Amino acid sequence: MNRPTKGSFVALIFLLCLVVAGPGHAQTDALPSWNEGAAKTAITGFVSRTTQEGGADYVKPAERIAVFDNDGTLWSEQPIYFQLAFALDRAKAMAPEHPEWNDAEPFRSLLAGDVKGVLASGEKGLGEIMAVTHTGMTTDAFAGTVREWMATARHPKFNRPYSELIFQPMVELLGYLRANGFKTFIVSGGGVEFMRPWVEQAYGIPPEQVVGSSGVVTYELGPDDKPVLKKEAKVEFVDDGPGKPVGINRFIGRRPVFAAGNSDGDLQMLQWTTLNDGPRFALIVHHTDAEREWAYDRQSHIGKLDKALDEAPRRGWLVVDMKTDWKVIYPAKQ
Amino acid sequence: MNRPTKGSFVALIFLLCLVVAGPGHAQTDALPSWNEGAAKTAITGFVSRTTQEGGADYVKPAERIAVFDNDGTLWSEQPIYFQLAFALDRAKAMAPEHPEWNDAEPFRSLLAGDVKGVLASGEKGLGEIMAVTHTGMTTDAFAGTVREWMATARHPKFNRPYSELIFQPMVELLGYLRANGFKTFIVSGGGVEFMRPWVEQAYGIPPEQVVGSSGVVTYELGPDDKPVLKKEAKVEFVDDGPGKPVGINRFIGRRPVFAAGNSDGDLQMLQWTTLNDGPRFALIVHHTDAEREWAYDRQSHIGKLDKALDEAPRRGWLVVDMKTDWKVIYPAKQ
Repeated sequence: MNRPTKGSFVALIFLLCLVVAGPGHAQTDALPSWNEGAAKTAITGFVSRTTQEGGADYVKPAERIAVFDNDGTLWSEQPIYFQLAFALDRAKAMAPEHPEWNDAEPFRSLLAGDVKGVLASGEKGLGEIMAVTHTGMTTDAFAGTVREWMATARHPKFNRPYSELIFQPMVELLGYLRANGFKTFIVSGGGVEFMRPWVEQAYGIPPEQVVGSSGVVTYELGPDDKPVLKKEAKVEFVDDGPGKPVGINRFIGRRPVFAAGNSDGDLQMLQWTTLNDGPRFALIVHHTDAEREWAYDRQSHIGKLDKALDEAPRRGWLVVDMKTDWKVIYPAKQ
Repeated sequence: MNRPTKGSFVALIFLLCLVVAGPGHAQTDALPSWNEGAAKTAITGFVSRTTQEGGADYVKPAERIAVFDNDGTLWSEQPIYFQLAFALDRAKAMAPEHPEWNDAEPFRSLLAGDVKGVLASGEKGLGEIMAVTHTGMTTDAFAGTVREWMATARHPKFNRPYSELIFQPMVELLGYLRANGFKTFIVSGGGVEFMRPWVEQAYGIPPEQVVGSSGVVTYELGPDDKPVLKKEAKVEFVDDGPGKPVGINRFIGRRPVFAAGNSDGDLQMLQWTTLNDGPRFALIVHHTDAEREWAYDRQSHIGKLDKALDEAPRRGWLVVDMKTDWKVIYPAKQ
């Protein structure tokens, strides 16, 4: 072995520093659950272009805002929205304290196990169930019931906790974007208080990056000097449809450069994100897999995808075909 | 020079790696504009305790949420709230397009340079000025007028841009907290759309970490396929007093461990932050310096500090005496 020169030592030290302290640029596949093809290439191409310093499409890290719908985009939403499943389960659990429910719809149907009857009660009946299960308690108490339900409830089709029915390819996409300096937000029609207790563990998205629908909350300082926030039976903000750009403006205050949705409720969010100068990206998760998940779009009562599907081609939005683009749907069982 | 051993080379490389890549733990003073004393020691003691892994008061990075009022806490608020100064200037600039204002209060007083007359028009008159200057345009257009005003307007007492009348000691405190893993948020009674265009440069706080009062905004996609958000003349949320814990819950979704305010409008935010288990910290900026800034508290119409000042001792809140605790008030002139 030759005696190394001073210069080669410095070079060696530098190299070792990169190995020890560097951010790790190993060429592993960040999206292993995505099949090779146009969808995956479109995503990685956009991320490459927008993160290449000096490139024409470079986006400064501070402007790398990525917004994701939740129901049907990050997790499943069939046969009923999971938050509604939570509400029905909660109402059943509360029933012993409410003997009057035995004689009043929609609770009578609910307690008889007749979910179709409950749904037939329409907006008014479902509104009553949402009110008794989502309001009248403190925000802390509500978060506790959400956590307990997430830990114990099982989805009827898959017999898994609801928080495991998240889309593995989308979880990878979130992580891939974050690894490339994007800040990931949920922008969902679902209740913000329902999502915050579990989304950090499921998606790596902290509570302060969750935008959702909300009810009025009031502050009280009791005689015991313990302040509480109480959830009132009054809707405050519906973060759906045209409410999504409004929610993005209110909570984030920047216009996103990346958006993902799955239904017409996301249409305005996709427009707001993409119909602007500079590099923009939008994708729609198209539920095409009746075997591994569900297949539905234009005629569905849940997650109806009709106008946004028509608009996608002329807007240049990527339509992800769940059946062909995704190797797996859900994370492997623990 | 002795021939170095292999072991000593490895040690050297490690040391150099720490120097090149380490987070930099040089013992420089992160709060140079704070005089040595009880206030500074209380702040650095809290940060040391809560960031010491394994310590009894350790707070996980994700929970290190720090909230700051803006008017009177991060910048001055005299002789009138700076957002009101913006509104008056804007109304004057808009006057040529509104000849009808010559005969109608509060605009007649405003155009005659009679600010006292304007203020005498009370909530109704000021509401009209706020409405014409803050609504009826797109969010982008409004942000543009805020930026232009910040670049051109000068404070009457100091003849400096308003964005330079920020408190240097508080800017250092924000940076010190962030360097220790805290996430810093503004939680202000001021308008969120008024703050977002300039707070990132002034305080290092990005738009998505600004909570404030807001008006209703609506989404529109015009025939030119350019979506806009329009600011409507309807108040949506007042982020003041009991509204501050509500705003914190809605926008951040975590309970802070650190809060700073200066008036009774911050009382509930300080309670919500501190009246809870675990290590908590609250401070009140007490305006005691009539020479370098202003001196006011219990009797002031702006930034009234009365109840919170009474509560501070029994809650253990730090009352910062601007005159004795701060070496300088504002950043040095550029």
